[in-house]
Amino acid sequence: MRELLRVRTGARHGGRVDLGAYASSAIPAGPTDKRAGQAAAAGLAGPLADLQERLYAASTAGDRRRLLLVLQGMDTSGKGGTVKHVIGLFNPSGCRITAFKAPTPEEKEHPFLWRVGKAVPRPGEIGIFDRSHYEDVLIARVRALAPPEVLERRYGEINAFEHSLAEEGVTVVKVLLHVGFEEQRERLLRRLDRPDKHWKFDPADIEERRSWQAYQEAYERVLERCSTEAAPWYVVPADRKWYRNWAVSRLLLEHLEELDPRYPPARFDVEACRARLMDG
Amino acid sequence: MRELLRVRTGARHGGRVDLGAYASSAIPAGPTDKRAGQAAAAGLAGPLADLQERLYAASTAGDRRRLLLVLQGMDTSGKGGTVKHVIGLFNPSGCRITAFKAPTPEEKEHPFLWRVGKAVPRPGEIGIFDRSHYEDVLIARVRALAPPEVLERRYGEINAFEHSLAEEGVTVVKVLLHVGFEEQRERLLRRLDRPDKHWKFDPADIEERRSWQAYQEAYERVLERCSTEAAPWYVVPADRKWYRNWAVSRLLLEHLEELDPRYPPARFDVEACRARLMDG
Repeated sequence: MRELLRVRTGARHGGRVDLGAYASSAIPAGPTDKRAGQAAAAGLAGPLADLQERLYAASTAGDRRRLLLVLQGMDTSGKGGTVKHVIGLFNPSGCRITAFKAPTPEEKEHPFLWRVGKAVPRPGEIGIFDRSHYEDVLIARVRALAPPEVLERRYGEINAFEHSLAEEGVTVVKVLLHVGFEEQRERLLRRLDRPDKHWKFDPADIEERRSWQAYQEAYERVLERCSTEAAPWYVVPADRKWYRNWAVSRLLLEHLEELDPRYPPARFDVEACRARLMDG
Repeated sequence: MRELLRVRTGARHGGRVDLGAYASSAIPAGPTDKRAGQAAAAGLAGPLADLQERLYAASTAGDRRRLLLVLQGMDTSGKGGTVKHVIGLFNPSGCRITAFKAPTPEEKEHPFLWRVGKAVPRPGEIGIFDRSHYEDVLIARVRALAPPEVLERRYGEINAFEHSLAEEGVTVVKVLLHVGFEEQRERLLRRLDRPDKHWKFDPADIEERRSWQAYQEAYERVLERCSTEAAPWYVVPADRKWYRNWAVSRLLLEHLEELDPRYPPARFDVEACRARLMDG
């Protein structure tokens, strides 16, 4: 799964990424219908929770490893739904979730990576970024919120930052939830149909659709410049929610299995403790 | 359920609380066996998640209300298990979980409520404290970590703090997970039996058992002094994990139902948005 969804860059592809070549409705591997997909995702809940507990347990004995899931995608692409359904499979006490909004005045006074660094998961944790430092080369690029040379410099700063995370034991899993233009329209229309979804609707989202192509190009630059060995990008087809949930769960499972965290051995005399417990 | 589990203080009871009168294995109401208890708790998942979403949605329109669950209890009483099983029923993105450990050097330089204030849930969130400011009148009292007059003053400071939270729209639900002395022994022995639970075992927990009675008395003082109208204490019998999970879920449900948060109405012209969406 990892290799299938991983963004391919490099000479063979002329160093370019064409998002149009990724079908947002694709089912590149795994279950092929909703019922099977939901069942498969539910089947991952046990293994994921087990691996998470082992990761946390290992941290109590000094293991510094942890995982950071970075979620990016257009409005309605399902970042929130992924947190609810995929991260909902984990023990919430070991999850550190941060939703990045427009920067506050305080955040604007710091370098763009400042607020991100503070949200990095601690050893043993699963961190989740709902949006991230990539907004500083996405909306910032589309809306020209910074001079071109500043934007240009940020790709390198991001790569250096993520490289340092990897060195500190953070497995960075970056997921672009790839939703189609027509599917987004359908989702926005469905929000308008349901009064209990109106709070999720912002008329500004309609304006943003006018910049769709500019956003696609900004994503392509991100995928070209920032999919590194230390922190590769994965493109998850997200037109089908059940597929998106299964695919992200599966990606996390594969990364956690590779980490293969272990319960630490007892650092005390088990039999002596047992005897003392029987006494008092 | 709330009234059944709520701590009764006041003149009729001589102002005293006797924890010994609360059976840690009791089943005061609700399901009476494990299977029924687990099914009943699972049945609360939908209503809890729905109420949480409404609470969050309301906050986007200025509703300042939120809920804070404070979990206290002896080692092995199930604070972690409650977070996993009960808070696991909610959307993790709306939960703010804080586990309070021994204060750091920085925290020690501040008043004891400083670190707690920073962890209060934002409007629309469900906050969870795994241990809390009550440690400053529990272990602090048992181990004499502060002079008696300082300890004495803290009850009033806590009440004033919680009163201010209530005024800001925070519904404070304080739960003592009440586990018995023999049940704790069994749980510690089971941790010793299982190598995958050794990481949770600390030989110091055996020492703490020697102070069991002193802790019970410290809890009784807390229940007497700090169960207020603004923030009452609930004692949940916790010898049975399935009962504990159901009872805490049920307590949260009753509080959320009382809040009765509402989806905010649209602040935009739905039909105009629909027309614009169809266009572009």
